[in-house]
Amino acid sequence: VTELHIPEIALIEDAARRLAPVLVNVPLMESERLNAHLGGRLLVKAETLQPTGSFKVRGAWNRIALLSPEELSRGVLALSSGNHGRAVAWAARRAGARRAVVLMPADAPVNKVEYTRALGAEVVAYDRRSADRAELVRCWREREGLVYVPAFDDPHIVAGAATIAYEVANEAAAAGFRIEAFLAACSGGGLIAGSALALSALSPTTEVWAVEPQGYDDTAQSMARGHRVTVSASGETICDALLSLTPGEYTFEINKKRLSGVIGASDDDARRGMLAAFEEFGLVTEPSGALALGALLSNRLSLQGRTFVVVLSGRNVDQDVFAKQLAAATKIPGLSRSDARHH
Amino acid sequence: VTELHIPEIALIEDAARRLAPVLVNVPLMESERLNAHLGGRLLVKAETLQPTGSFKVRGAWNRIALLSPEELSRGVLALSSGNHGRAVAWAARRAGARRAVVLMPADAPVNKVEYTRALGAEVVAYDRRSADRAELVRCWREREGLVYVPAFDDPHIVAGAATIAYEVANEAAAAGFRIEAFLAACSGGGLIAGSALALSALSPTTEVWAVEPQGYDDTAQSMARGHRVTVSASGETICDALLSLTPGEYTFEINKKRLSGVIGASDDDARRGMLAAFEEFGLVTEPSGALALGALLSNRLSLQGRTFVVVLSGRNVDQDVFAKQLAAATKIPGLSRSDARHH
Repeated sequence: VTELHIPEIALIEDAARRLAPVLVNVPLMESERLNAHLGGRLLVKAETLQPTGSFKVRGAWNRIALLSPEELSRGVLALSSGNHGRAVAWAARRAGARRAVVLMPADAPVNKVEYTRALGAEVVAYDRRSADRAELVRCWREREGLVYVPAFDDPHIVAGAATIAYEVANEAAAAGFRIEAFLAACSGGGLIAGSALALSALSPTTEVWAVEPQGYDDTAQSMARGHRVTVSASGETICDALLSLTPGEYTFEINKKRLSGVIGASDDDARRGMLAAFEEFGLVTEPSGALALGALLSNRLSLQGRTFVVVLSGRNVDQDVFAKQLAAATKIPGLSRSDARHH
Repeated sequence: VTELHIPEIALIEDAARRLAPVLVNVPLMESERLNAHLGGRLLVKAETLQPTGSFKVRGAWNRIALLSPEELSRGVLALSSGNHGRAVAWAARRAGARRAVVLMPADAPVNKVEYTRALGAEVVAYDRRSADRAELVRCWREREGLVYVPAFDDPHIVAGAATIAYEVANEAAAAGFRIEAFLAACSGGGLIAGSALALSALSPTTEVWAVEPQGYDDTAQSMARGHRVTVSASGETICDALLSLTPGEYTFEINKKRLSGVIGASDDDARRGMLAAFEEFGLVTEPSGALALGALLSNRLSLQGRTFVVVLSGRNVDQDVFAKQLAAATKIPGLSRSDARHH
């Protein structure tokens, strides 16, 4: 394996400085009821409140703010299930790029397509099941002369995502508490790789756990074998932002060394996370964005007596889907409002 | 009219210091799309993210933190449509009050009743249409020896609510922008009275507008006549937190001198505000909490070329009601997600 360049903490600090003017600075939030229910302390990092509605704005802006005038005059290209595309469209407009082209699956949520278009980007649909993504990207890059902004497999994208855990570690240090574990959803692995990098520098005893949808467990399988494997899409999931079938090369190099483990979580976990975010925090989340929270609510990792941070990573969900998943969540046994009186 | 004691800015600063440890410090948020649509700058203050899910925690904690050990040993009493009750239950538990009794309408949203109970309070239902509230309160106070914590008509409650505009004015001063107008929903008038007090001290050129549900326009009618009047409940509204029929004595004394005006808004405005909070900010709001935002979206006050701050004051809504109101929300021409492609 080639030894890849791993961003030092200085790169993450640079990213944090670059991002400060565009981010919404929201402190960690907690719910006394959730804490009591779980027997520990659960702190949520609401990336749902960032511009474009997901953490993806961090990597996109960190990368696009570094483009040269010549690169901006050519325009940018992204391949994305939706959130990265919207973030790239936003960053491209802000940076003054001539154009932004976003390749998005034909079955992406309506809002992800429409908000990306509303930011002036050209959205090009592809078939998620049959398309050769690498070939698609190569073709658009060469034909149109666009600068490609990867969704995760890039040091600047990872350094951008790393600013989340960087902020969390600084907040914990300032408030004087220790974080036993940090959890975030994992698709290509950029968010969790960045988290692992920042925490290994600033809070090295904190465990870092990736949460994947069951059936899209490419990072778990790759971790188990010690090298990157491609899984076959085995069924449906409501987590439309977490459908990667292979870990990133750069991100896996980090993750295989630094992750404490990978948790597989179900659609019911995602729904449960969405309901808890709604009821306990008044936050809208998309299924993928609530999966890590839901995994904790389902006790896939015990919080007992410990302090955990979980990232709510996105909230770009169609209104009818949101209503439907919340309604379905209430039928899952366990924590729901109607149990409140029993506490 | 008796000259009532009006809190000086020092009382608001005291409240801000007392509240700092219990509040979630969220900066003003804005949406580029909403700004472009409205032709101005719209900043939202997300009180929905505060503990107990509404701004009411500010007044409740500011009042209850000042109770003596003897008063805490007697316990507290509140009369509330829900949010103030939940906030009082939360503050009473935190302060170590022996008990909290909350008188709440029998038709209050389920979540308002259950979360208040889950905090250890005794919730007593009364009939909103027939009960003599003053008599109810008097009876419970005397019989049980409880300390009454008013929902709005009290200098400490108003000073607590005033910390919202105090924070907003300080944030605007630090960032170097001027706020032309400040809007918040109005029931008994505590939130808007506090806002007016803080702004008259810190940002005296800022207009302060109260937003009431049509049919529950007791503050508008009282302003028009120069004295407090009681309106008759004329029909239904989804704004369950804004059903007051008479302004508070103390709050009206402030409001009649300091408000720029009162805006009547419809259920459709509330739904529209809820939809915009969901789509543009990822925030859950209850109808009452989104009414002021919705009034702006319906152009009941023009934002053209100006900077406005609007308070999202609460988010304690039952999940089925939330879904139903979002689905029923009138799309805003040119803004709603399904129109995004036309931009």
